Amino acid sequence: MDMNIDQVRAMLLADRSDPDAPEASVEEMRQGMETFTKMLPVLDTAKIEPIELGGVRGEKITPAATDETRAILYFHGGGYVLGSPATHRSLVALLADAAGCPVWSMDYRLAPEHPFPAAIEDGMASYAALLEKGFDPSRVIIGGDSAGGGTTLATALMAKDKGLPVAAGLMMLSPWVDLTQSGRSYESQAERDPMVRKQGLDRMAGIYLNGSDPHHRYASPAFSDLSGLPPMLIQVGPDEVLYSDAVTLVERAGLAQVSVTLEAWPEMFHVFQMFHPMLADARRAIQRLGGWARLQTS
Amino acid sequence: MDMNIDQVRAMLLADRSDPDAPEASVEEMRQGMETFTKMLPVLDTAKIEPIELGGVRGEKITPAATDETRAILYFHGGGYVLGSPATHRSLVALLADAAGCPVWSMDYRLAPEHPFPAAIEDGMASYAALLEKGFDPSRVIIGGDSAGGGTTLATALMAKDKGLPVAAGLMMLSPWVDLTQSGRSYESQAERDPMVRKQGLDRMAGIYLNGSDPHHRYASPAFSDLSGLPPMLIQVGPDEVLYSDAVTLVERAGLAQVSVTLEAWPEMFHVFQMFHPMLADARRAIQRLGGWARLQTS
Repeated sequence: MDMNIDQVRAMLLADRSDPDAPEASVEEMRQGMETFTKMLPVLDTAKIEPIELGGVRGEKITPAATDETRAILYFHGGGYVLGSPATHRSLVALLADAAGCPVWSMDYRLAPEHPFPAAIEDGMASYAALLEKGFDPSRVIIGGDSAGGGTTLATALMAKDKGLPVAAGLMMLSPWVDLTQSGRSYESQAERDPMVRKQGLDRMAGIYLNGSDPHHRYASPAFSDLSGLPPMLIQVGPDEVLYSDAVTLVERAGLAQVSVTLEAWPEMFHVFQMFHPMLADARRAIQRLGGWARLQTS
Repeated sequence: MDMNIDQVRAMLLADRSDPDAPEASVEEMRQGMETFTKMLPVLDTAKIEPIELGGVRGEKITPAATDETRAILYFHGGGYVLGSPATHRSLVALLADAAGCPVWSMDYRLAPEHPFPAAIEDGMASYAALLEKGFDPSRVIIGGDSAGGGTTLATALMAKDKGLPVAAGLMMLSPWVDLTQSGRSYESQAERDPMVRKQGLDRMAGIYLNGSDPHHRYASPAFSDLSGLPPMLIQVGPDEVLYSDAVTLVERAGLAQVSVTLEAWPEMFHVFQMFHPMLADARRAIQRLGGWARLQTS
């Protein structure tokens, strides 16, 4: 049954913890995300199988109509601390269907067990393994949401730095690419965002960085030299504290001579695409992502 | 014959006046633009006829394959001081072809003879007349380049303020929407931009505003409340001093809950679409504009 965005917001706010309550543990937060996302149905025509790429486990989600010469490498969100291919299976299955090719959804290492740069090293290892499998880089898209958007961008930078051929495109959904939380929207959009708070991001950044410099090239890639990266598509909602990250990224990527498109989706908030089972705009946005992936890899 | 962007830049720089030379008169600048743009060939399948909309003259450019139930209302660039439907005929004819519908290209009043808000009043009058002709607003796109992008945005604002139904979309090519020239790119991109200089824009703004406040809602529409406007597509190049105008506009439109897409085209500069006879990216960009116009009006 379709909802409007305010109903989705109300549902999320009802589920959100009291800001004055004692801080949830990492384990509690992880459990909460797994429980919540289990409610999101997975397209029943999608084939799901466990895989491993360069020592990183994950799952490959293959749509009914598939082109095995193309691939999307996907990194889930969750602040580098939470989340898994399971929490993002519903979103990723619809993305695979829209793109008409398998999505390799990676279970990269999370903090605090594995702080920065473990996530990016796993991103890099899985991208390199995909190329070693024989995929033509011009047929590979890297993508992800939130922290997975940051992983996407940092993985592409690391691949470039190591001299690997770049992928055909990067797609980022509400990317978290500034680990200093410096944008205007962290304050201005706080009231509209039912999912993410600056305080929560500060905590995640602290856990993930574990003392590393947030300005490191692979930590806050929005501030890095982005020249030489492939075309990018960024989707964002205005009603999220990470709105400024997307604006900063499009501005800086453009100035670095990267072909970049930013889509701002009215009334939407953080990774709204996740709510596609009840939200028409989420389905439209995923169709756009899929269409773009097809175009970039054709 | 196709050129690369550096060849187009060199051609423009060779034509550009010495910054230390005495200032060209408005008449000389107008003549220069007419002479230069006459070299750009016009698609020979386009039908061109003089029209009048709400007392504003212009020309209607109809492509070979046309849908007369749809329309694009177009405002040429030229700093509110220069330009005409004739200077933009080559660009507009290809846009009409890509969109599959006629473009109504308006000869709105220019400064210094007719300072602000004459251009916007003419924009408004021509839009209102199009609706009076029986066009469904959901089948009308308003668009323009540079100052014509500003006219597009201000016309949409004025139409909304007057209670007219909004168009189906606004498309803006390198829009000039900040008449205070406050963006970072006015300095940072100056060396890369072969067409526009801050000094030139300051002069045009002075002539156009003729003492009016540059922060007026219809003068620098990027800073206005943009809520209630239809979907927007903005195309810009990083190698232009107006780059910041586009970034500011996408940020503010998004926050105003407008559906907005920004495309940054690597290596491109101010209204690069104009150079489509010799530039493949310009042709690709115009195809994108046409496809978007079809989608928004379907």
